[in-house]
Amino acid sequence: MQLADQGDFPDYVIAPDPGAARLTRAVEGVDQHGRVTAISVVEERPLTIFLNGQEIVTAMTIGDYPEYLALGFLRNQGMLRNGEVVKGIDYDEDLETVVVRTDGQTSYEEKLKKKTRTSGCAVGTVFGDMMEGLEDVRLPDLTVKTSDLYALAHAINRTPSLYLEAGAIHGTVLCQGARPLVYMEDVGRHNAVDKIAGWMLSEQVSATDKLLYTTGRLTSEMVIKTALMGIPALASRSGFTAWGVEIAREVGLTLIGRMRGKRFMCLSGEDRLLRDADPDAVQDEDRKHRRRSAAL
Amino acid sequence: MQLADQGDFPDYVIAPDPGAARLTRAVEGVDQHGRVTAISVVEERPLTIFLNGQEIVTAMTIGDYPEYLALGFLRNQGMLRNGEVVKGIDYDEDLETVVVRTDGQTSYEEKLKKKTRTSGCAVGTVFGDMMEGLEDVRLPDLTVKTSDLYALAHAINRTPSLYLEAGAIHGTVLCQGARPLVYMEDVGRHNAVDKIAGWMLSEQVSATDKLLYTTGRLTSEMVIKTALMGIPALASRSGFTAWGVEIAREVGLTLIGRMRGKRFMCLSGEDRLLRDADPDAVQDEDRKHRRRSAAL
Repeated sequence: MQLADQGDFPDYVIAPDPGAARLTRAVEGVDQHGRVTAISVVEERPLTIFLNGQEIVTAMTIGDYPEYLALGFLRNQGMLRNGEVVKGIDYDEDLETVVVRTDGQTSYEEKLKKKTRTSGCAVGTVFGDMMEGLEDVRLPDLTVKTSDLYALAHAINRTPSLYLEAGAIHGTVLCQGARPLVYMEDVGRHNAVDKIAGWMLSEQVSATDKLLYTTGRLTSEMVIKTALMGIPALASRSGFTAWGVEIAREVGLTLIGRMRGKRFMCLSGEDRLLRDADPDAVQDEDRKHRRRSAAL
Repeated sequence: MQLADQGDFPDYVIAPDPGAARLTRAVEGVDQHGRVTAISVVEERPLTIFLNGQEIVTAMTIGDYPEYLALGFLRNQGMLRNGEVVKGIDYDEDLETVVVRTDGQTSYEEKLKKKTRTSGCAVGTVFGDMMEGLEDVRLPDLTVKTSDLYALAHAINRTPSLYLEAGAIHGTVLCQGARPLVYMEDVGRHNAVDKIAGWMLSEQVSATDKLLYTTGRLTSEMVIKTALMGIPALASRSGFTAWGVEIAREVGLTLIGRMRGKRFMCLSGEDRLLRDADPDAVQDEDRKHRRRSAAL
């Protein structure tokens, strides 16, 4: 893997690029005192994803890494299964489309045709399909050190990002031990995860020793996605839902929520947590790097 | 309209019901010191929405007001248009389904059939359809007083809610002047808005003098929904995207973002804002009622 030059953060394979002209725009607003102010605001663009000749969905995205987003979306929705060969991915910036081409028709297209014949449309099947794959998931036993958790949160919060630049955006980071590898941001929290899934699939990166860190809530959908990606640990600054916790326990996913400063809550996989750090020795978050809810 | 008994908040037509047994569950976690802690956590359930015989989508929801959610979802997606008569709504708690029945086939089903014949599925059309209706939107000129904005934010933040009880949930409130009328919460921020749309449709409530307050970000989708509902003002504690601001300006929606304590930013409709309150006389939010990003 080639390492990008990230100044103080030389270890990222992909880091946010808050300076990229295409991702933010100056917008004028008027504040509570009537003062006109220019604010840096994130962009949001439609991207229509096709699987071969089949239009699948229009996602709203900041627009970086459209190929990874399309590939990861199709994979995470179960529309691309193991063994299906991706021949090419064509992104058209003007048309705002991305087409993922496979070798022959995919099993999803086959399934979609069948479903279409019976009930007219497959919108409602997406969720059902995601739960389907879950029973076969056996996540590897990964020891998660609390010292690594604290180091990751500290590094991620300080990494220059679109969030720090403009707010109103979610971040998701693929990590290995104490090292954040790939940090993706997007207006939808699922897009950020899908971009990571697309990158992992493209680069054939193993999931077994990875942890996924997200700024978003740990809902059932987020837990299912992580488990289907084969990643054995998921940590977040935010809260969680009851069903998210239940699914994590069923599939053996280590689940950490409400992680901020020295505090965190382990909801699943407590026995795989190695408590090698003294929480009282951990610095609380300083004001500048604390995430405001404005961002989420 | 019948007023519910809300103690200190007698003016709500519908207020959150944080004590409802079905909406939260005690979940055990282990904190940073290894202490086992029981936490109140929001539930999340699948709800499959049908339009007549047509399965449309499976939404993840806390599960209150399934009828309003289904009705509002179909309306906000353009699947139920003006003049279409809803004969009945059948909710089945065990099957986790809700069926909205109209008088005869809807124009959406007609359209879906056509679309299905040409490209196999209509997943990707939903977004296109939402933008389609937008060119006809002419929002009424509503004067928004800053004193009302401050009063609303203060009242809403202090209203007993699932958020204050369990976190990890979005809130959306339909307001009139300084009065919050209907306060819906849900795991998905769009569900909360859809439940309000369903209530407005059921009760035939006019949108022309209303303001929508949300805890979530002001993305294009949120702005489009509000405009299509005919509501002339939208305010949020959170940030905004460039396209959300652009659409608000095009349709004449008054858009207020980053509203917390005395601070706010008006992004669109500044000329319809009546600045009748001195921001420096407004109290900042106290710690207890400040939303943490954990919620969002």
